[in-house]
Amino acid sequence: MSRDTVSNGIANANSKSVRFVDVQAAANRIRSYVHRTPVLTCEAINKRVGCNIFFKCENFQKSGAFKFRGAINSVAQLSEADLASGVVTHSSGNHAGALSLAARIFGTKAHIVMPSSSSEIKKAAVREYGGVITECEPTLAARMSEAARIQNETGAVLIPPFDHAHVIAGQGTAALELIEQVPELDMIVAPIGGGGLMSGTCLAARELKPSLRIVGAEPTGADDAFQSKQAGKFVPQLSPDTVADGLRTSLGQLTWPFIRDEVDEILLADDLATVSAMKFFWERTKVIIEPSCAVPLAAIIKRFSEPTFKDSSLERAENIGIIISGGNVDLQALPWSN
Amino acid sequence: MSRDTVSNGIANANSKSVRFVDVQAAANRIRSYVHRTPVLTCEAINKRVGCNIFFKCENFQKSGAFKFRGAINSVAQLSEADLASGVVTHSSGNHAGALSLAARIFGTKAHIVMPSSSSEIKKAAVREYGGVITECEPTLAARMSEAARIQNETGAVLIPPFDHAHVIAGQGTAALELIEQVPELDMIVAPIGGGGLMSGTCLAARELKPSLRIVGAEPTGADDAFQSKQAGKFVPQLSPDTVADGLRTSLGQLTWPFIRDEVDEILLADDLATVSAMKFFWERTKVIIEPSCAVPLAAIIKRFSEPTFKDSSLERAENIGIIISGGNVDLQALPWSN
Repeated sequence: MSRDTVSNGIANANSKSVRFVDVQAAANRIRSYVHRTPVLTCEAINKRVGCNIFFKCENFQKSGAFKFRGAINSVAQLSEADLASGVVTHSSGNHAGALSLAARIFGTKAHIVMPSSSSEIKKAAVREYGGVITECEPTLAARMSEAARIQNETGAVLIPPFDHAHVIAGQGTAALELIEQVPELDMIVAPIGGGGLMSGTCLAARELKPSLRIVGAEPTGADDAFQSKQAGKFVPQLSPDTVADGLRTSLGQLTWPFIRDEVDEILLADDLATVSAMKFFWERTKVIIEPSCAVPLAAIIKRFSEPTFKDSSLERAENIGIIISGGNVDLQALPWSN
Repeated sequence: MSRDTVSNGIANANSKSVRFVDVQAAANRIRSYVHRTPVLTCEAINKRVGCNIFFKCENFQKSGAFKFRGAINSVAQLSEADLASGVVTHSSGNHAGALSLAARIFGTKAHIVMPSSSSEIKKAAVREYGGVITECEPTLAARMSEAARIQNETGAVLIPPFDHAHVIAGQGTAALELIEQVPELDMIVAPIGGGGLMSGTCLAARELKPSLRIVGAEPTGADDAFQSKQAGKFVPQLSPDTVADGLRTSLGQLTWPFIRDEVDEILLADDLATVSAMKFFWERTKVIIEPSCAVPLAAIIKRFSEPTFKDSSLERAENIGIIISGGNVDLQALPWSN
């Protein structure tokens, strides 16, 4: 990867610059670094929803989230010279830990710009994987300018959290595996934050099983993808307000075309439903998921109980795959303990 | 099972009344009712301890605990007449839910005597599985007399939580599976409460791999098995004080001889270490375990860091199996939130 092709959100990227062959190549490239995560089912959940749900457990992925797929796929394509300079990103979420771990595996340095307001537990995760934290003011402008400064001073390569061809291709390997593991799927659901996971999911699903219904899920408090699809044009996420901390960002230039053209439907869930679904999932499966990946489950539970459900295409879905995006939760501050 | 052979804690049971063939028979009998639970490993935990730990995930078992194995093995052996009368037990823990579910599967009624102080979440689990709760004063005497009254009035068969040949044989199937799944084990560790799981584990381990080191784990605040082994005679648990709510009971007449004769060593962990190990496990594996099954992990972590470790037989253990006994936790009252 040359530094010029790395988008920082303003590059003139072409939506067709990521293709299914890139997902396939990513799968081969990262196979020895990632876990082929298991698919979990739960009778109590199936009974509640009335169909079979297959959870692709990326919370069991290295670094605790699917983000490691995109990060390692990006770092694995860096040149020797790039690896000597290190990588940089600005993130307060799972991409920060994932990139730190990917960098350590390839023996390079990860500079992570984090807002000073980031929780200690998130900083600790980055440090544990060997990432070097630079704190900045908690604004997007401050994060971007600090990352740019580090790029200039160190020559580090920017690996953005989602709007990047190598990242999207890496994220697509989760859906690729899920469709291999559960060929009988007739619907696949992923949460939408910046849209990297959803874009990769579209690439894998459209190619491997064109009949598959592709559904996104968003919090009502950060429904920019839903709004964008409704408007037929990119709508930024201005004031996100949701417990699903991984889904607060706007779509990117590379990801928006996938959402626009390939996603069949976007379902919404409010935070009350999301927290309830998250707790229900913990109780019944004994598996820890973070709020962001409870959004698809909450949205599916809600949709299946609505009066208009009978007329919807969801009615015909018998086997639904949901990508459980991550399991990194601050156990000292669970959303239901307040 | 005739009612006469069911121990209520005072029967003149013979310690040799449960044998390995009973565990084998139980495995065949319950195969279609239980989950063959997965074995989980975690790099971060292995790194911390310095050997390979294989966790047998009975928290993923039906009803959320290994207790379902013993309960279904008991109920499956009831006569038509017994099934018509129902079953009864007194328990505020996992046996209550497990027996309720087993009874429902066999179309019979489960009477569960629970102390009035039991948490709502435990009562809800019993009700959900169709168990009928009778509340009583929170003393052992009140529980036993209430259960006896129900036995007399309804003819229900008492299925005690651990001191029962069919229950012990059922619990032994967890270790049987684990040894099949990980033949390279050289140590197996289980928590000791009433001793049902540990007794069944001894039966499976001694027969299938005689060289296997059999280790029990107890909280320092309920160390009756440790004390009993030290004294060479049964010592009851008088005033248990531990967060590990599944391990507060005394050993039974059937289980004590197994602890005495077959368990090689009992390790202890205090509650601080147990809660810390539990949280560490949740964070690293994204899997929910209850305090009772964090005790073995806490004890192993402690033992491996002690100065006398070098001289111990543990030093030679490279592959340790730990039976994760259950995952039923009140998410509103986690032990680290205070």
